[in-house]
Amino acid sequence: MLRAHRNFGYEKGINSPFHPNLMRNFVVVGNRAVTTPDFSLEDIPGTSGRIDILCRCINSAFVLSHGIRRDVAVYLILRGGPSPKTVHLRGRDLRHLNPDERTTASLLKKALVLEVDSNWTRSTPGIFVRAGDLADLEVYGEGTTYYLREDGSDHRDLSSAGDGTFVLGDHIGLSEDDEAFLAGVGAKIVSVGPRSLHADHCIVLINNELDRREAVNPERDIDGNRTKERR
Amino acid sequence: MLRAHRNFGYEKGINSPFHPNLMRNFVVVGNRAVTTPDFSLEDIPGTSGRIDILCRCINSAFVLSHGIRRDVAVYLILRGGPSPKTVHLRGRDLRHLNPDERTTASLLKKALVLEVDSNWTRSTPGIFVRAGDLADLEVYGEGTTYYLREDGSDHRDLSSAGDGTFVLGDHIGLSEDDEAFLAGVGAKIVSVGPRSLHADHCIVLINNELDRREAVNPERDIDGNRTKERR
Repeated sequence: MLRAHRNFGYEKGINSPFHPNLMRNFVVVGNRAVTTPDFSLEDIPGTSGRIDILCRCINSAFVLSHGIRRDVAVYLILRGGPSPKTVHLRGRDLRHLNPDERTTASLLKKALVLEVDSNWTRSTPGIFVRAGDLADLEVYGEGTTYYLREDGSDHRDLSSAGDGTFVLGDHIGLSEDDEAFLAGVGAKIVSVGPRSLHADHCIVLINNELDRREAVNPERDIDGNRTKERR
Repeated sequence: MLRAHRNFGYEKGINSPFHPNLMRNFVVVGNRAVTTPDFSLEDIPGTSGRIDILCRCINSAFVLSHGIRRDVAVYLILRGGPSPKTVHLRGRDLRHLNPDERTTASLLKKALVLEVDSNWTRSTPGIFVRAGDLADLEVYGEGTTYYLREDGSDHRDLSSAGDGTFVLGDHIGLSEDDEAFLAGVGAKIVSVGPRSLHADHCIVLINNELDRREAVNPERDIDGNRTKERR
């Protein structure tokens, strides 16, 4: 699945992306995303509260030319129902993911059929769902939390940039309450470039920056285990 | 449409992306992409020769948070028919483009209904179609041509990187004949990172790098006209 490209100092077989304790978490807030499966695959943008945006984020987070990223996890916060739900996709056991929007939306539909409480319920391999909102996630202690906002510091310039949790809004963005919560967990506000981009494009850029840093400074041995502690 | 972000040295109103003589051209080869409109919007990957890939490339090339990129042009080379067709999307007069795959595929379907010869025929605003292949395009004299390949030089490191023509393959890649043609027009082989990515992700990364260079070194006046000649 990994490719050796000498221009990036990447050695085949080294830096396996799989390590259970090292993750890139992408959290995407769908402010109007429906929490039930009764949207139409023939008109995802018009019937689902913009679940199409979330599908594109899933593609950006996981899809490589020859496989999917095993070291990535995605959390989708769906707020378009009476109470919020969270869908979690975990790269290390994710199956049936195709790059197109429609089949990804079908996978989300299946997850939204399930009755949920505050515990994760497995839908299909690598996809889990539960009741809960942004503040209920357990990811904020796992490395640094980054909040993607247009006026943030340039992510490329951060000497500390590494795996961690990246929080992004959909077309509506995050509320003041969300921002206050993220400030409370010490989130750094970062940006990916001079233009205002959709969340899925931001995820492509974050993945690329982190790929580059891993390639230059590999911190895993040949089995994919970390050779030093998280920064 | 443009946003002012002081962290990137970008001034609102300056660097308007519209200038008719300054373009970012993205050329994407769809090796099996159908040249007729008889594919199903309910199964684009399975019935169209992977026009879904081309739809995602269109999104990456044009879509900004609050509009579309006017200074971008896309050329899709469809080779899945008895003779190739080229679909051209031009940002400066493109209309009806939504970010989701299905509506983009609908626009391509409309273009593929038209009878074509070697002249451009307009389908919907900003979308044109004609008979022709990669070697028939007139873009190769417009600035540098870049061919995206995994073993290329890092695009970020190129001091000369600027607008020009970027040629990408779909999941199948380019043929030896294509590569020979591109070598003949002096194409530089570039890569965007240490992992092998889909064409649409590569386009996001190229756009971001060029956005950053424009922000640091604006070469256009307040009306969007170039203040010096193309490098």
